[in-house]
Amino acid sequence: MLHAIVMAGGSGTRFWPASRAALPKQLLPLAGDRTLLEDTVDRLEGLVPPDRTMVVTSAQLLDAVRCQLPGLPESALVGEPCKRDTAPCIGLAALLVSRVDPDATMAVMPSDHVIRPAQRFRDAIRQAEQLVAATPGRLVTFGVRPTYPAESFGYIQQGEPLPVGPDDSPAHAVARFREKPPASVAAEYLAAGSYLWNAGIFVWRAATILAALRTRQPECLARLERIAAAWDGPDRDQVFAAEFAAIKGISIDYAVLEHADDVAVIEAPFGWDDLGGWSAVARQLGADATGNTVVGRHLDIESSGTIVHATGDHLVVTLGLVDMLVVHTPDATLVASRDREEAVRKVVAELENRGWMEFL
Amino acid sequence: MLHAIVMAGGSGTRFWPASRAALPKQLLPLAGDRTLLEDTVDRLEGLVPPDRTMVVTSAQLLDAVRCQLPGLPESALVGEPCKRDTAPCIGLAALLVSRVDPDATMAVMPSDHVIRPAQRFRDAIRQAEQLVAATPGRLVTFGVRPTYPAESFGYIQQGEPLPVGPDDSPAHAVARFREKPPASVAAEYLAAGSYLWNAGIFVWRAATILAALRTRQPECLARLERIAAAWDGPDRDQVFAAEFAAIKGISIDYAVLEHADDVAVIEAPFGWDDLGGWSAVARQLGADATGNTVVGRHLDIESSGTIVHATGDHLVVTLGLVDMLVVHTPDATLVASRDREEAVRKVVAELENRGWMEFL
Repeated sequence: MLHAIVMAGGSGTRFWPASRAALPKQLLPLAGDRTLLEDTVDRLEGLVPPDRTMVVTSAQLLDAVRCQLPGLPESALVGEPCKRDTAPCIGLAALLVSRVDPDATMAVMPSDHVIRPAQRFRDAIRQAEQLVAATPGRLVTFGVRPTYPAESFGYIQQGEPLPVGPDDSPAHAVARFREKPPASVAAEYLAAGSYLWNAGIFVWRAATILAALRTRQPECLARLERIAAAWDGPDRDQVFAAEFAAIKGISIDYAVLEHADDVAVIEAPFGWDDLGGWSAVARQLGADATGNTVVGRHLDIESSGTIVHATGDHLVVTLGLVDMLVVHTPDATLVASRDREEAVRKVVAELENRGWMEFL
Repeated sequence: MLHAIVMAGGSGTRFWPASRAALPKQLLPLAGDRTLLEDTVDRLEGLVPPDRTMVVTSAQLLDAVRCQLPGLPESALVGEPCKRDTAPCIGLAALLVSRVDPDATMAVMPSDHVIRPAQRFRDAIRQAEQLVAATPGRLVTFGVRPTYPAESFGYIQQGEPLPVGPDDSPAHAVARFREKPPASVAAEYLAAGSYLWNAGIFVWRAATILAALRTRQPECLARLERIAAAWDGPDRDQVFAAEFAAIKGISIDYAVLEHADDVAVIEAPFGWDDLGGWSAVARQLGADATGNTVVGRHLDIESSGTIVHATGDHLVVTLGLVDMLVVHTPDATLVASRDREEAVRKVVAELENRGWMEFL
């Protein structure tokens, strides 16, 4: 049976002040009326039922996640006591899923990407499920065809093509995983045509990923097994906190994928955007006739290329702005030149530095 | 005896959203800790006592003015039922002052300018008082030596010099008043060296200005006299509302000064700024090392030449801004390019146009 594991523990700083430690990107409706997390779970409708869906987030986000996903049972929500990257998260999910379904296949996905249309996503996951059914030890990844020489993504180099059905997307064996490249290398990848952006979406049997972790990360898996063993007992929280904290954080890519023999990559048949910043949001929402993108109450006089994001009834007026970013929240407002969008992280670092924790 | 008449009925739009219809420029602490109105009244200390000070404002601002000036008796506050420019305001003040002091000399001044230091202002008013005492029919104005070819001020052309004491400022007969000039004419005035900006501050005997109004604006004065006659009776509000509304609005410059024979101008020995917009505020407050001027809670990353004005505890973060203006208030925020500062008035016009009256 197919199970969905939604990873919702991310804590970015690129959308400050709209995003905060207690309200990270995946909990915001950045690309429409629904939050990215809500969109991610909505997207599973018809593919995986709620009782085979698991959302792994951080303990401090558990209440907010619960509020956004009233359709999921309480048992579907896992709150990690601390951040340990994706391998421990996925390993624990695999153990918990295996307890009820030893033959489970897992579709693992981030909760903070924009993926449209949902039907193409579901089709691709089903194709991956078939690739796993055909070769049970296989790990399936998804790659997005690059449209520019991005330096901020990992790349997957396509190897030999795999046989696919007439309605399927192209699938290949993975030749190699490549880390985030410098610009010149990214340009080579783009020109070569055989490199895809790693979308961070995976399909595999729970047993397969657990076996790989047992080989590659035995201590991590042992601790995760102690957590799983305590899951239904009175000591769950205590064991979870102690054992999880003792695990060394590592990504599933480093821990397993880069060393595995049988990894396939399906070329994503859906539109994909990791929403890396406000300009990506503007791309998703589209612009008005003057090139401005607006969420919230706004009045403009002769601005262009400007992004405005305001909460509540607060009015933001822009006058003669060119390529600017204005993000208003009840307690903090950011005004930035759009070409400095990457430096929003500096703002958060400086707030930490000054100890202005109420704004984080 | 010298009486002070502070004109505080102005309603500008250049400082929106910090200024509103119910909180115009003179009621804001734009150039320091005190509001411009408070500063104006503070400046009279040692020159005119509270019981010889009168503040003329609009009826709807009366409560706010009363709150800012707790040291003035209730009888010192006059709330005009509608706007009729400076001549009716000054005429009514002259009538009210004459009732208690028929030989009164009045110093008339706006409440929304920055004048520093206060001692020099008091010295100049005393000099004007002496010029009036020497020639009781004389009208005394104040001129500010131009520092650039301003198009937004009226000018006073100096005529024959008048005798002054050793510590006095230069004083001249007024050759002519000049309206706001186009740039080329303003440049000629600046080069000529004998034109001063009209500071809108006047000293004269109440009897003199009333005689001039009787000749030049007889209907206006007749209506003002009916108001003054009803001032202590039960019909004051009714008569004030009806008669004042029936007066045609006109400035004291057009009504009297431009036609008067004996007008003197004292060259202002004090620093003067009419605070025509946010850049003037920045000039008054000064800038930090990066050329930014900040009022309120603020964090900057690599901005320059930027003005930030935030109310309360709201945090404004600026990132990579150059010559921008950010004004935050609890219900509205303006972000503008500083070179479009003049167009803030367009914003207010557009808000009116849309019927968004809650922001005016």
